[in-house]
Amino acid sequence: MRAPLRHAPEVYVEGILRGDRVLLAQAITLIESRRPDDQALAARISEGCMPHAGGAFRIGITGAPGAGKSTFIEAFGSMLTARAQSVAVLAIDPSSPLTRGSILGDKTRMERLAQDPLAFIRPSPSGGSLGGVARSTREAMMLCEAAGFGVIIVETVGVGQSEVAVAGMVDFFLLLMLPNAGDELQGIKKGIMEMADGLAVNKCDGAHAAQARMAKAAYSQALRLFPAGASGWQPPVMTCSALEGAGLPEIWEMLESYRRQMQTQGHWEARRKRQRVEWLRGALRELLEARFFQTPEIAEALPGIEAAVAAQQAAPHQAAAALFSQWEALLRR
Amino acid sequence: MRAPLRHAPEVYVEGILRGDRVLLAQAITLIESRRPDDQALAARISEGCMPHAGGAFRIGITGAPGAGKSTFIEAFGSMLTARAQSVAVLAIDPSSPLTRGSILGDKTRMERLAQDPLAFIRPSPSGGSLGGVARSTREAMMLCEAAGFGVIIVETVGVGQSEVAVAGMVDFFLLLMLPNAGDELQGIKKGIMEMADGLAVNKCDGAHAAQARMAKAAYSQALRLFPAGASGWQPPVMTCSALEGAGLPEIWEMLESYRRQMQTQGHWEARRKRQRVEWLRGALRELLEARFFQTPEIAEALPGIEAAVAAQQAAPHQAAAALFSQWEALLRR
Repeated sequence: MRAPLRHAPEVYVEGILRGDRVLLAQAITLIESRRPDDQALAARISEGCMPHAGGAFRIGITGAPGAGKSTFIEAFGSMLTARAQSVAVLAIDPSSPLTRGSILGDKTRMERLAQDPLAFIRPSPSGGSLGGVARSTREAMMLCEAAGFGVIIVETVGVGQSEVAVAGMVDFFLLLMLPNAGDELQGIKKGIMEMADGLAVNKCDGAHAAQARMAKAAYSQALRLFPAGASGWQPPVMTCSALEGAGLPEIWEMLESYRRQMQTQGHWEARRKRQRVEWLRGALRELLEARFFQTPEIAEALPGIEAAVAAQQAAPHQAAAALFSQWEALLRR
Repeated sequence: MRAPLRHAPEVYVEGILRGDRVLLAQAITLIESRRPDDQALAARISEGCMPHAGGAFRIGITGAPGAGKSTFIEAFGSMLTARAQSVAVLAIDPSSPLTRGSILGDKTRMERLAQDPLAFIRPSPSGGSLGGVARSTREAMMLCEAAGFGVIIVETVGVGQSEVAVAGMVDFFLLLMLPNAGDELQGIKKGIMEMADGLAVNKCDGAHAAQARMAKAAYSQALRLFPAGASGWQPPVMTCSALEGAGLPEIWEMLESYRRQMQTQGHWEARRKRQRVEWLRGALRELLEARFFQTPEIAEALPGIEAAVAAQQAAPHQAAAALFSQWEALLRR
């Protein structure tokens, strides 16, 4: 991983505000860095960009393995840039290896979009905890907004717990499905379907068309069993073929109508406010837990205590209280 | 709330082991007490009972408002006691008021079962955090097991977040539904359906019979969309009429077949081990958060910081880091 040149924070902020891709990319690298000096610089850049952020439509995309996420994002993003809409694609992949070998893979996955002057593709920061990766992505999103991108697509990569994190940072969470519904949910984890603001059944081309219509009916019925959220929005089920481009304009129309409806009714900003406060609380919990679980004495004692609790040799609550007292004693030292 | 007589811990433990209801009830009151001396005594009692716990079938029951939970538990519990099966009914209700006025309500809700010598009904501890209430219920469950109850039913009361807590402490989580499915999910919160090990469509009597069969089909189809868990168990959808007693023997048969299958395959104890470790971790997180959020300086600063973050005047991550540093400085004082 090459170290970026380091400029004064204003250089990055001004560059980002006038849409300089190189400075934007370097600033995101600083955000992802774990070096304290990089982090301090990144914080200054974020601070400078924050007043200019918030203007994009933030769309999260997840899907069953094989549902064709990359092809969808490539086709959908290209359709948007063809309509003079600028698009940034970010990814969350806490399971990716520590080496940054996935960059090339990520970039070549979306070859056409990567060449597009109106698009910016940023692969997932690799390694690190889900919390850390989610934070990087959230801040990268803010910088992309300051750089003027009108649509930001956040993609979940791999099979981590990243779906919850992505749903918590976007305006709309889209779940991509395969046409062969019904048997099982194709590896979709529990609870994902209930977080979706909409479903798109992909690969509805050629021989799959009839199957796709059945899948659409089955998913629609399943979704009706879940109550609508506070906004009253009922997640629609659409069909599309990313390969042939069919259905993509309709999905964008649906997204725009969602945005209009949510903005008119005040749910748009309300959701973002909730997300920001939840982000603050999550960050606090993470700092607290890191402080506790990374205390050497605690990290050393925990596995034995967990084994004793699992084997019912110790009561969970009492064991927790004892370990916590030990930690408090360490704090007072 | 009358203060219980206080004996030595051995008196409670021995009494509970020989099935003394009065001492069992008093010990549970000690568990629910927030007085430090009561808590110390309760910890000794729990410790003494722990080696004798674990023998019951722990069944969690939740349901849509109006689904008839009390009637179901009364009828189902009475069916079990008629078969010489002893039943304890516990409840989780973090939303109940601080006064213990709900006791009478709870008891009279299940008048027949409350009179039954083979049954023990304990209303929810009132007030307190969900974490605290859940802990009391878990420990009360342990004491009931030490007292020899073969079936323990944990009921969610009110509309808190108690469903997740209950699902995390039982062997089987049963969701009670109404026959008029399809329109909306009758107030069932998101994610609840996916936590269920089985559904029972209640009130399938008289004019509702046809509707109930349709609801059963709709729910069955919806559940098939979710992947089976590690145990391979596919949640069944049953119908019943708690009012007329129809379908209850079949539900108990299903539960027994679930228990046999899970015990044979080792999933029974594996689930309990996971629950115990999750309980330990949850207790640690709770202690940590209480320590942090109840620090007077933090409690005072937080609302303003949350408002600034919501209004996008401060970046969530930076605000969290600053508040956390403030706390660390306080610790070092």
